[in-house]
Amino acid sequence: MIREESQLKGISELNVTIIGLGLIGGSMALAIRQLEPRSLWVVDQNSKVREMASAAAVADEVFADPTLPLGKSDLVILCLYPQAVADFLEKYRECFRTGALITDVSGIKTSLLAQINHFLRPDLDFVGGHPMAGKESWGFANASASIFAGANYILTPTVRNKTQNIRFLAQLFLDIGFAKVTSATPEYHDEMIALTSQLPHVISISLANCIASDDISDFVGGSFKDYTRVAAINTELWAELFLTNKENLLNQIERFQKNIEQLKKALTDHDQQSLQEIMAQGARKREVLF
Amino acid sequence: MIREESQLKGISELNVTIIGLGLIGGSMALAIRQLEPRSLWVVDQNSKVREMASAAAVADEVFADPTLPLGKSDLVILCLYPQAVADFLEKYRECFRTGALITDVSGIKTSLLAQINHFLRPDLDFVGGHPMAGKESWGFANASASIFAGANYILTPTVRNKTQNIRFLAQLFLDIGFAKVTSATPEYHDEMIALTSQLPHVISISLANCIASDDISDFVGGSFKDYTRVAAINTELWAELFLTNKENLLNQIERFQKNIEQLKKALTDHDQQSLQEIMAQGARKREVLF
Repeated sequence: MIREESQLKGISELNVTIIGLGLIGGSMALAIRQLEPRSLWVVDQNSKVREMASAAAVADEVFADPTLPLGKSDLVILCLYPQAVADFLEKYRECFRTGALITDVSGIKTSLLAQINHFLRPDLDFVGGHPMAGKESWGFANASASIFAGANYILTPTVRNKTQNIRFLAQLFLDIGFAKVTSATPEYHDEMIALTSQLPHVISISLANCIASDDISDFVGGSFKDYTRVAAINTELWAELFLTNKENLLNQIERFQKNIEQLKKALTDHDQQSLQEIMAQGARKREVLF
Repeated sequence: MIREESQLKGISELNVTIIGLGLIGGSMALAIRQLEPRSLWVVDQNSKVREMASAAAVADEVFADPTLPLGKSDLVILCLYPQAVADFLEKYRECFRTGALITDVSGIKTSLLAQINHFLRPDLDFVGGHPMAGKESWGFANASASIFAGANYILTPTVRNKTQNIRFLAQLFLDIGFAKVTSATPEYHDEMIALTSQLPHVISISLANCIASDDISDFVGGSFKDYTRVAAINTELWAELFLTNKENLLNQIERFQKNIEQLKKALTDHDQQSLQEIMAQGARKREVLF
């Protein structure tokens, strides 16, 4: 009971540990440090990253072994690849402080939560999360508290989660600069993300792969540069994200392929009216969003 | 001979007319005004646009009828849709000053130049051009001299054109802020533009058409917003651009479709290695360019 209350007391009374100092973990550390938690600890396997983190003084202490900080932390943020989140939770199952609140930042949720809920200690509260922020370069060296400014954050709570913990996380993410925190089921999250994040990456990669030579550079305007931007991708992470959300992503790719095919048909048929209708429809659909 | 020399004298001794005050024509007027030509005249059919242009004092005089300024102009910049460029040149064939230099800003070149060269008066020098600049909003109200800053300009000269005129235009476009002016054959231009400009627009429209409801807004990160940006398109202009460059564009769409299909196959086969190779190839190809 005491632990539950402590999580409502505010960040200044909490010990926070961030596991994994990549782009998101490093940025989380930099952002949360500004909120002045009671203690902020960070953990990374890579000794060079730990050196950088120490030099940048992102935390009160930098660890290679998570055991010690886990035992004292009220809040643990896992900034690891999806499968690594599950592996970490299983491996360090017994190391967490009683009643700790745990969250992650990985880009797929359904299969991950199903996996975790098999072995998660009943006293721990794992709330899935996904910051809709990032950039085309990665790693701790590119971390910055400012990457979260104005972005969306998705939480994917389940019936297992405590309401006050969901609220606490929502407020925390608003406090570090996110513009909006939304709750969605893990299934709905994965379906939406296939369209809004994974499909644009598929497109970007496929467009970049159309480059036949560097001769085109003189012919490049803003759109081509923008549209291939995220082709500079962390291949290991994104292959895992794609494969773990395969059915949803294949579904969205096929919807996109149908739209391309429809536009191509209007072009082949020299059907100016259909072409203009297809364009106008796209413009209208986007206008509703932005 | 006198006219030829005058074009090498520099903009301060030249009368310049801009036909059509859309986004590009309006921006051209604003940019060229800063170079202080002897006279700068602008022509637009739309009375509201003419009022705006007069109020903004973009030129020495604003005309509805091009006859008068054409008769006195050393340089005429046609900022019209592709077919309208050809129609204008045919209609006002007899109105141009002897030896005038004419250029356009339209996004396709091969068929346009073939058409124009049928009827162009032998003393006139028409050099095709294409500024690789723009934005997702259009019309004179959105015009700004700054949209050209750092962009590429393509000229598509033919054997008919005078070398000094090509050089003059190249310098003029650098002077108004373009970072680079490249010469290409009309055919090569159209082939390249199908990939670097038209295909991204096809993709953007097709991605925007994947939006099923406005519910997705909470799940949107930077990539989806960026990738649908140019879906807000001037449908009449772009339908004309697509249809006039149909063969090249269909070819590029098919190359893109093959890349999407290849990635989809790796995903369907759960082939992580191929997925990562496809991603890495895209990243490498883009890296060479930017």
